[in-house]
Amino acid sequence: MTGTVSIAGVELTPLRQIEDARGAVLHMLRADSPGFAGFGECYFSQVNPGSVKAWKRHQVQTQNLAVPTGRVRFVIYDARESSHTHGRTDVIELGRPDCYARLCIPPMLYYGFACMSASAALIANCADRPHDPAESESLAPEALAQGGPLSLLLAGLTS
Amino acid sequence: MTGTVSIAGVELTPLRQIEDARGAVLHMLRADSPGFAGFGECYFSQVNPGSVKAWKRHQVQTQNLAVPTGRVRFVIYDARESSHTHGRTDVIELGRPDCYARLCIPPMLYYGFACMSASAALIANCADRPHDPAESESLAPEALAQGGPLSLLLAGLTS
Repeated sequence: MTGTVSIAGVELTPLRQIEDARGAVLHMLRADSPGFAGFGECYFSQVNPGSVKAWKRHQVQTQNLAVPTGRVRFVIYDARESSHTHGRTDVIELGRPDCYARLCIPPMLYYGFACMSASAALIANCADRPHDPAESESLAPEALAQGGPLSLLLAGLTS
Repeated sequence: MTGTVSIAGVELTPLRQIEDARGAVLHMLRADSPGFAGFGECYFSQVNPGSVKAWKRHQVQTQNLAVPTGRVRFVIYDARESSHTHGRTDVIELGRPDCYARLCIPPMLYYGFACMSASAALIANCADRPHDPAESESLAPEALAQGGPLSLLLAGLTS
């Protein structure tokens, strides 16, 4: 696994990859998985080489993310004033076969991601409730330039 | 859309693709989607170029399939003796951007699939219950050679 999580509430759960010469079967989320908190929506976010999608923050929705195709760097920033990890930034890279895991991001954390692979990456998200623009916030990448989150994200493109 | 569904209970629902220069956002399934019958498990099946995965049949699990990466031919065969479409075979090809849709396959139908793209395809499945080997049946590809299903599947590789 590349990177560790330290922000309160963020979880990284290794997922099973069942190898097969015809193509692997890749676990993602089961209703009987430990910690499963309900199903609201499954969708995909493609990230093209050299592209960054940042920053997002949700008021109530929890993200459950995996990267079955390509490689993605995630940067998570804790701006919750009441959090004991307030001000902390986590950097995680997900992709097969070495970093195939489910990344759980609870509400109220800023997060962004960048494609690290030479071909397009695919993020799958099984969120605990359907998308609702009223609880979803977007900031420009430059909005979190101070203190490191943006440079950590962009480092994924140039390292 | 390439192919139409005619077997009783099989459904094909076009899905939204939100184009973005950084990479598209692709809908899959929401808990408030019409016909949503519960969430049991989300997993992925990669299908390598030239590969076939067939045949599968489930006693109780319903499959909800989409193809966010690559192109896949699905062949579905109705062996249900009580079905008014008994003996019928459906052939559907899914892939972006022209055939991005959710294919719902109810229990008791045989289905198989073949990769039609030059690079690996990815199938996402949001099944209505977690995988249970006790209700899952697998047959060799040759088991459905009579009557056409296998040749329709293999035609995907050579046409």
